[in-house]
Amino acid sequence: MPSEPLPRVVILGGGFGGLYAARALARKPVDVTLVDRRNFHLFQPLLYQVATGTLSPGDVAFPLRSIFRRARNIRVLMGEVVDLDSASVSLADGTTIPFDYLIVALGSTHSYFNHPDWESNAPPLKSLEDALEMRTAIFKAFESAELEADQDKRRAWLTFTIVGGGSTGVELAGALAEIAQETLRTDFRTFDPRSTRIVVVDAADRLLPTYPPELSKRATDKLQSMGVEVRTDTMVAEIEDDLVKLLCGDNTETIPCQTTLWAAGVAANPIGDMFCRRLGCETMGGRVVVNADLSIPGNPNVFVVGDLAAHPDNLPGVAQVAIQGGQHAARSVLRGNRPFAYRDKGNLSVIGRNAAVAQIGRFKLSGVLAWLIWAWVHIAYLIGFDNKLIVMLRWAWNYWFFDRSARLITPSRHP
Amino acid sequence: MPSEPLPRVVILGGGFGGLYAARALARKPVDVTLVDRRNFHLFQPLLYQVATGTLSPGDVAFPLRSIFRRARNIRVLMGEVVDLDSASVSLADGTTIPFDYLIVALGSTHSYFNHPDWESNAPPLKSLEDALEMRTAIFKAFESAELEADQDKRRAWLTFTIVGGGSTGVELAGALAEIAQETLRTDFRTFDPRSTRIVVVDAADRLLPTYPPELSKRATDKLQSMGVEVRTDTMVAEIEDDLVKLLCGDNTETIPCQTTLWAAGVAANPIGDMFCRRLGCETMGGRVVVNADLSIPGNPNVFVVGDLAAHPDNLPGVAQVAIQGGQHAARSVLRGNRPFAYRDKGNLSVIGRNAAVAQIGRFKLSGVLAWLIWAWVHIAYLIGFDNKLIVMLRWAWNYWFFDRSARLITPSRHP
Repeated sequence: MPSEPLPRVVILGGGFGGLYAARALARKPVDVTLVDRRNFHLFQPLLYQVATGTLSPGDVAFPLRSIFRRARNIRVLMGEVVDLDSASVSLADGTTIPFDYLIVALGSTHSYFNHPDWESNAPPLKSLEDALEMRTAIFKAFESAELEADQDKRRAWLTFTIVGGGSTGVELAGALAEIAQETLRTDFRTFDPRSTRIVVVDAADRLLPTYPPELSKRATDKLQSMGVEVRTDTMVAEIEDDLVKLLCGDNTETIPCQTTLWAAGVAANPIGDMFCRRLGCETMGGRVVVNADLSIPGNPNVFVVGDLAAHPDNLPGVAQVAIQGGQHAARSVLRGNRPFAYRDKGNLSVIGRNAAVAQIGRFKLSGVLAWLIWAWVHIAYLIGFDNKLIVMLRWAWNYWFFDRSARLITPSRHP
Repeated sequence: MPSEPLPRVVILGGGFGGLYAARALARKPVDVTLVDRRNFHLFQPLLYQVATGTLSPGDVAFPLRSIFRRARNIRVLMGEVVDLDSASVSLADGTTIPFDYLIVALGSTHSYFNHPDWESNAPPLKSLEDALEMRTAIFKAFESAELEADQDKRRAWLTFTIVGGGSTGVELAGALAEIAQETLRTDFRTFDPRSTRIVVVDAADRLLPTYPPELSKRATDKLQSMGVEVRTDTMVAEIEDDLVKLLCGDNTETIPCQTTLWAAGVAANPIGDMFCRRLGCETMGGRVVVNADLSIPGNPNVFVVGDLAAHPDNLPGVAQVAIQGGQHAARSVLRGNRPFAYRDKGNLSVIGRNAAVAQIGRFKLSGVLAWLIWAWVHIAYLIGFDNKLIVMLRWAWNYWFFDRSARLITPSRHP
């Protein structure tokens, strides 16, 4: 007697939302297919450490197959979703996967605010390749300065502008300051790396605008004490390959600068539009409008979680929203739909050695204690056990010796 | 009273030859400039471990600047040599560097034996990018097999042909067998990775032809016990994207195969020709003909070491020849030219867990003891201390759990 087939659940995306949805469905009476363009989960919060040479790509990326090797009800497929209807999704290679439940967790991408031409001069930080390209840009700038005989041009190679004063911008600025002050201090013969100029620009009136103002103040003070220039209330008017034009009120300022890093602007995955055309839902600012239970109107078995979802509670685009959303959608598959109640576990941003800011419930912390909490939380959330050990070892090494072993300049194969 | 200027030594290349030449000149009364296209030294002997997902790029590559940070008489420049004469070299960016002594250690590149068209279907393993591309090809093949419904096509995705039965070919075959038998054993749902077919092809009559025949025999036995097919006396007649044609005597055989890896054919860096046109020396098979003291005829202050040199003793193209040659050239700079006497420290090739072959002087070893020597020698020669620790940790992890954390499929940034 054949047993009744299990409900088929398709999960699109192996980021935080999709990963935690699949984990919640492992070894449950459902038949799960997890689809991602890549064969790994990327631990985004530590991506800036790849871009600044502390960690290697393998330390922050985990093969999805390996995570689910023991969950026999989960199948991992590497493929790109190109189409779907209310009962199946189609991949670029022609494979069609039917589903009873669909969990869409396709996340966000970077946005250049209608200035796509800026991307070539200001690399973003969203994928592993972005991080490697940024790492190359940063360390190549110092190499070019060593080769440059003209003083003004050398100065431009030693100037870094970071666009965006959110978590990523602050983390990059802090790491760059440490690279210039400590890591590279004795590495060059024609200039002193400590003369490196680092400018962080944000249109808001303070850094880390999602934090309480006093923590923004502490982060700014700390960065300034590390030699970073902080420009708030300032817009970027132009990015060229050797300069950045800033606009603060009526004042314009031109900074000769060979390296601009993009840490601003996130946009929902453009696939949301295709998705809504096919399933008759709506987008808001690119995000898919979902019901309180994360399902889309008229399709109670289709859930959108994480950065791609526009939830009635107007949830922020952070990892915890995706993680909890993924887990919630999985529970809905198993036990029926219920409204999603996001539990804010707090915010953490790191600035540098012994320096972070943390807002956890009513508590606001900064300095060493916030930094220890940051390190502990990030290690705890790292997926693979061996990576936890290796990341701890690398951090300890970096902490005591200020060294960064992964500062490789790796061009594409045929340069 | 100005002191007399120090002799200027320019070293081209940061591989084994250049690195050990520079180390021997550190803190000596010379003014050294070390030029490399890349900003790191690549530890080639472990490159196959990057290609097979055990190690990360940062584990086998070390920033040259960091190695020489405390040697104030050594300046590292990242640049590509485009021209030279008997008194200076020119870089691609226009920089000219005058020298009193020149040490050329520009190594070798891969060769496709007059079949450059094969490269696109059979990636080589020489640079870090090659290793990442090979890693992608290997793990992508298994992903494609999981997606493939047609049995024959799936079989072709699960077939790997390795061209070349020297050290690299044997190491790749052993690592691939472990990936198929152990690492991926429970990772797929539509096929059993243990059915993977691995074929090693070499035109010689045995694997590892530079070793004593009995060690070749043991390596062959070990590989065969791991399920690898060994085809000696066999030539490659054709490589297409989904098949390989082999020729053994008068017999041809077609193997449907989506992944062919190139572990054969090394050619001297083609820059040797330009070099000899400028300095009036000669090449032999692409290598620069040098005197017994490694200098070129008529230019006692210009030395060529490592794979690029054709020495009267007809030395093999191995790391030890480059290392000892670099050290010898450095000593010649400091104390005058003397004939180079290569000291053969032996050969080591690893096949897999607890399995290696070693030939050290009159001693021939295989099995666990050879494997332990192999691991010890490679860890000892790794440059950075933190990398030694991390590599040991990764190896221990891989050894006990058969896992490979770095099996990432990373396409170029805009796929």
